[in-house]
Amino acid sequence: MQNKRILAVDPGYERLGIAVLENDKLLFSECFKTKKEDLHHERIKQVGERIQEVIDKYNPEIFAIEELFWGTNQKTALLVAETRGVLLFVASRNKLTVREFKPVEVKIAITGYGRSTKNQIMSMVPKIIKIEKDIKSDDEFDAIAVGITCFQTRIS
Amino acid sequence: MQNKRILAVDPGYERLGIAVLENDKLLFSECFKTKKEDLHHERIKQVGERIQEVIDKYNPEIFAIEELFWGTNQKTALLVAETRGVLLFVASRNKLTVREFKPVEVKIAITGYGRSTKNQIMSMVPKIIKIEKDIKSDDEFDAIAVGITCFQTRIS
Repeated sequence: MQNKRILAVDPGYERLGIAVLENDKLLFSECFKTKKEDLHHERIKQVGERIQEVIDKYNPEIFAIEELFWGTNQKTALLVAETRGVLLFVASRNKLTVREFKPVEVKIAITGYGRSTKNQIMSMVPKIIKIEKDIKSDDEFDAIAVGITCFQTRIS
Repeated sequence: MQNKRILAVDPGYERLGIAVLENDKLLFSECFKTKKEDLHHERIKQVGERIQEVIDKYNPEIFAIEELFWGTNQKTALLVAETRGVLLFVASRNKLTVREFKPVEVKIAITGYGRSTKNQIMSMVPKIIKIEKDIKSDDEFDAIAVGITCFQTRIS
């Protein structure tokens, strides 16, 4: 089984979690933010351009992203969906293999339990993958968790 | 007041209405469809690539698009939002001036009445703009209506 480099994201409009993983190593992660004072389509553009920069720098083969469901936060769901659209487009255009995961799949992959809490996820992630930096952002953690899910359930 | 070429869309995932207008002339319109059997990210890619082709061919200066609201069709709202994200990204990247319109603004621009029906819109559109082809698709009509709204409410 060949190990492939994974670009994983936790799609968000104001805060986008990005992680690049190879095997059990975290190569890069960040929480990319867009500014409230910028126009909507400018923010959408910034998100797409940022993910293109990360693809250009790390040259991943797989793009992993969470599926979006009607959650408690319907107010922002449409904005998150627009962000997802841009991310899927850029990943597709760059010929990355796209894999989408349900939130429950991520929870099971990380904790073995489909109803685990955010804190349980955050305490498990550093036990699964070597992280040599201080990660403060939930969004970064979520992106890493999606990447681990992809790594653990890879097809080829 | 300078007349500018407008690219207008009725964003949809399965069916995307596209129209290019200059003054009171319709230069181009179509209903671009993606196939159900294609993967989700492939369809997203096709939408983005199609709008890029239209931009390359017609070189518009303004991009007009309807805002998305929670409607009766919540099932497809997230997919439409993803499509909107791609369209806004491509338009932004091509440095088009982006203008978003609420559905009620389109209705008022076309019929003078904010609660007009789809049929009223469709009967008014050919009276406002010269259309030298047979338009059968609602989505094409909707895109033209958004374009007319943009033309009638232009800022500069």
